[in-house]
Amino acid sequence: SKKTDDGNANRGMTLEDDLNASIHHYLQIGKAVIHKKPTPVQIVSVDYPKRTRAKITEAYFRQASTTDYNGIYKGYHLDFEAKETHQKQSFPLKNIHDHQMEHLNAVTAHGGLAFLILRFAHSKETYVLKAEDFMKLKTETDRKSIKKDDIATLGIFVNPSILPTIDFLPAVEQLFRLNV
Amino acid sequence: SKKTDDGNANRGMTLEDDLNASIHHYLQIGKAVIHKKPTPVQIVSVDYPKRTRAKITEAYFRQASTTDYNGIYKGYHLDFEAKETHQKQSFPLKNIHDHQMEHLNAVTAHGGLAFLILRFAHSKETYVLKAEDFMKLKTETDRKSIKKDDIATLGIFVNPSILPTIDFLPAVEQLFRLNV
Ligand SMILES: [Mg+2]
Ligand SMILES: [Mg+2]
Repeated sequence: SKKTDDGNANRGMTLEDDLNASIHHYLQIGKAVIHKKPTPVQIVSVDYPKRTRAKITEAYFRQASTTDYNGIYKGYHLDFEAKETHQKQSFPLKNIHDHQMEHLNAVTAHGGLAFLILRFAHSKETYVLKAEDFMKLKTETDRKSIKKDDIATLGIFVNPSILPTIDFLPAVEQLFRLNV
Repeated sequence: SKKTDDGNANRGMTLEDDLNASIHHYLQIGKAVIHKKPTPVQIVSVDYPKRTRAKITEAYFRQASTTDYNGIYKGYHLDFEAKETHQKQSFPLKNIHDHQMEHLNAVTAHGGLAFLILRFAHSKETYVLKAEDFMKLKTETDRKSIKKDDIATLGIFVNPSILPTIDFLPAVEQLFRLNV
């Protein structure tokens, strides 16, 4: 039995850690209210000891029905998924699940800002890309990945910064040409 | 060890069940994209068996840092908490936690629609109330609860309906006087 503080110890956590710190910073300075959704868990069995807190003794990871992040920025509803790849020149399509794209498309249809934050771990390049442009690239290709060059053309490069580590909101403003 | 399908078997689930069915209906008919956030769980220990899915063997319920529900409706960011009381004429203030009110106030400050869905289980009356009006009533009272009459005056009664069971979006439109 493997000890972990979040159940994701075996997966790449760098992008998620950086993003969580960044949205926490945005919240602290009053710039935006964005939260990561908790990992969905199917709880099967719980112990209720008399003097200590309830202990979940059997549970399983469930597939999320939405993306990991959403919130509000300058009145706009934001919704996005964040993924990192270790490939150098392309981003694997399988990293974004179909039901996540369906969710993002629904958000777009209702007037929200739906996008992806894609990071190339090797070069530490991060891009924001509209969900609809991801769909376009996915539809146009026969390959199992989309090119970094196309992401760079259609998306916006997130300038490296220290606080927050991933300062994606200026890139989102540019991406959606927000008049604010 | 008590078996449960969601870890909340001991709490009143009626309002939550009805709301989950209602937001699912809104999603199906393309009226709004609203989701309940998963219950936040602190995962301590996970088994990774070779041939079956990962099993969480030790975990604890964490306190949510936000409300349970958010989403988008006609371009508006919605954020709300839903609570039921078995009291007949008043709603206990302790049912809404301070950090949830802080979250709702932040959403209001950023231009979102932040509200509460309050149900009186006995009379099956449901109201939507702006988060800011809840704060107002809370500030004005010396008691540990707010009166149903005041909720009825400042909030909007949700008309009983069959599909969805809790058709709260028309009440939300009225509450925030949306020009849509
Ligand atoms: Mg994810
Ligand atoms: Mg709750």
